[in-house]
Amino acid sequence: MFITFEGGEGSGKSTAIKRIVKALEDMGHEVILTREPGGTPIGEQIRNVILDKANTAMDPRTEALLYAASRRQHLVEKIIPAIKEGKIVLCDRYLDSSLAYQGGARNLGIEEIYNVNLYATEGMQPDVTILFDIEPEEGLRRIAANAGREVNRLDVEKISFHHKVRESFKKVASMFPERFAVIDASKSPDEVFNDAFEAIKKAMK
Amino acid sequence: MFITFEGGEGSGKSTAIKRIVKALEDMGHEVILTREPGGTPIGEQIRNVILDKANTAMDPRTEALLYAASRRQHLVEKIIPAIKEGKIVLCDRYLDSSLAYQGGARNLGIEEIYNVNLYATEGMQPDVTILFDIEPEEGLRRIAANAGREVNRLDVEKISFHHKVRESFKKVASMFPERFAVIDASKSPDEVFNDAFEAIKKAMK
Repeated sequence: MFITFEGGEGSGKSTAIKRIVKALEDMGHEVILTREPGGTPIGEQIRNVILDKANTAMDPRTEALLYAASRRQHLVEKIIPAIKEGKIVLCDRYLDSSLAYQGGARNLGIEEIYNVNLYATEGMQPDVTILFDIEPEEGLRRIAANAGREVNRLDVEKISFHHKVRESFKKVASMFPERFAVIDASKSPDEVFNDAFEAIKKAMK
Repeated sequence: MFITFEGGEGSGKSTAIKRIVKALEDMGHEVILTREPGGTPIGEQIRNVILDKANTAMDPRTEALLYAASRRQHLVEKIIPAIKEGKIVLCDRYLDSSLAYQGGARNLGIEEIYNVNLYATEGMQPDVTILFDIEPEEGLRRIAANAGREVNRLDVEKISFHHKVRESFKKVASMFPERFAVIDASKSPDEVFNDAFEAIKKAMK
């Protein structure tokens, strides 16, 4: 079983994931929580190239191909073996983040980014994807109020970018309705967890 | 003008390219000779990940995506600007090497590798591609006889692999007849140079 979590900044995704891990473990499942590049040495090396601040000349398509390469390695080295061992794999951001951020918000084209990732993943999609949907203004307000969470580069992009990310995620969700569960993340943490966990339990049946 | 050179091991490609550079310069053209990753720092970093001997866990599709990323950066940073400045760009191996080696000889599928590279290159193909075609046995015999040329990892692959590379190059050439010139590289260096240069002059008209 392969479950992914997507959403914009300040959507409460991390908080909900922690509770979902515990809830699944309490049910007796073996759970692996991962995120790209997932501790694979090759994935880390690729990520270092992407994040190297000296690489200002990096073309957006180069970046998209590198993300896809890192995803491929993480999938083959970590996700697929764990699934084969009968574990539940939870992945904090996966292919849909590339579709929404690079394909949609950065205008590279959702379909183009999807095609590159289709090659990287051999079409392997999550069984269920939880999208934590929230108004960007509310998400950023939460981040500002949360002293424990550092504000990163993406947080300070202008608000129109965050709106574009949100709309792109919704568009991606409408492209794959069979695996997407869109959660209203403006609700209380308890409600958000419950809604997400219900969607997962439904997918497990 | 964008010219690429392809072919198997020991095909006399490098010797012919040197003479072509000189012949084009003698005609008054400004010529740039390059090969991937072409000295672009990002391309070099990506190449280091591909060639790192510790990376034995690298999946073939990860490798294909990394080659495409390196190609993209080389194209955008070096090839396209030089063409825009009116230079003739000669590139020693380009997309067709990925198609023949990874797509054909390593069984990743020529069409699949082409699709990934279509994204990387935005469909930009060379104006002319010179394929130096030679029997693998003859190519390897030449390498063994040539003390000045170190034998590398690809040279020592078994002969069936080199045959597969040759057949794959021929298949790729038949996919793009409008830009491919297939040269019989078993001829003398003078004849090989002349045939290649004739094909280039024809494409320049």
